[in-house]
Amino acid sequence: MNAVALLSGGLDSATAVAIARAEGYEIYALTVCYGQRHAREVQAARAVGQALGVREHKFVDITLREIGGSALTADIPVPTDRTEEEMGAGIPITYVPARNTTFLSVALGYAEVVHADTIVAGMNQVDYSGYPDCRREYLQAFEQLANLATQAGVEGRARFRVWAPLLEMTKDEIIRAGLDLGMDYGLTWSCYNGGDLACGRCDSCRLRLAGFARAGARDPLLYAE
Amino acid sequence: MNAVALLSGGLDSATAVAIARAEGYEIYALTVCYGQRHAREVQAARAVGQALGVREHKFVDITLREIGGSALTADIPVPTDRTEEEMGAGIPITYVPARNTTFLSVALGYAEVVHADTIVAGMNQVDYSGYPDCRREYLQAFEQLANLATQAGVEGRARFRVWAPLLEMTKDEIIRAGLDLGMDYGLTWSCYNGGDLACGRCDSCRLRLAGFARAGARDPLLYAE
Repeated sequence: MNAVALLSGGLDSATAVAIARAEGYEIYALTVCYGQRHAREVQAARAVGQALGVREHKFVDITLREIGGSALTADIPVPTDRTEEEMGAGIPITYVPARNTTFLSVALGYAEVVHADTIVAGMNQVDYSGYPDCRREYLQAFEQLANLATQAGVEGRARFRVWAPLLEMTKDEIIRAGLDLGMDYGLTWSCYNGGDLACGRCDSCRLRLAGFARAGARDPLLYAE
Repeated sequence: MNAVALLSGGLDSATAVAIARAEGYEIYALTVCYGQRHAREVQAARAVGQALGVREHKFVDITLREIGGSALTADIPVPTDRTEEEMGAGIPITYVPARNTTFLSVALGYAEVVHADTIVAGMNQVDYSGYPDCRREYLQAFEQLANLATQAGVEGRARFRVWAPLLEMTKDEIIRAGLDLGMDYGLTWSCYNGGDLACGRCDSCRLRLAGFARAGARDPLLYAE
């Protein structure tokens, strides 16, 4: 069974791919480089793909920075030191307009080319519920679109589905699942800032560190503070 | 009223923008450069945008060539000298997997940034019906997705629609509509090949020439043969 997997280099997508590999999927990994600040994440994606034995790994560049609208692609500071309550309130400034839709669209094209009908993605709606494009009803709407959008769907050769195995899991459940599968989280990168060491203070670092603490595990990544 | 318009530089999208301008929309044009052979089309898009007085024009690069799968992005010859009957049979090799979905997704992100809730696109399902992502039911599925995918949609600040004014028009009706609005089709570029002169033989050139003939008008573009 072939699956295209969106692999960002972050903790979630790496775990999603590890789960799909364990279920027997051959993975065609897709990393979309969109001018994010954390280009460090793209290097991590390459290392994770190699460690998980993906069959093929494509890197597609897209200059989403051109249209702006997010702290991750425009010159807006990434917020730091927010509590989990603050992070949970509303849609964060790190939201990139229509990002997941764009990524899933590219993944859909790739899936059609390699004859995969499953797209694996690391979306999660529990810990960080502010993103509209991380909800089940959104993913279902994308599946509907996918079957109308493609030659394979229209001709009935494929019935596309988006498989988001982490959708209902908390961060510590995700980490425990990955550790059980032998995932080396030292290869992944979650920080929104792009330094040599993870900052430990942006929302993404804080969620990650809290997840490791709750999972009773040590994060192998090095942090600046 | 603000609208984001997908502007490829081809005849159809130029006419769609001319129609939207005539209806009073301020146009935020988006040209997606996806490694197509006809990069010449991108220059045309710039000229068309200027001629039609768009308020802003963004160019987003995406390396869709990485995933291949089409004569427009991979090293597959573009077919030539096909009859309209041959062109109408099945999905052509110039189909780019999930291209319109990817383009509409980027347009959606741009629309959210500039507070537009209309996306203008030049899709047409009459002359060249082989593309699955040029049908009304596909566009409706995208609208549904758009309202679930975005901060503006979820918060009820926008109700996104994809407006494809050419959807039911034949090529000669499109050309007549554009000429009535003063469109200079010498600025547009339709050829799938990227030479100095349009080839006159690929499907796109042939449909264009047949459209001008039926409209009783002269195509101002220069052709190699």
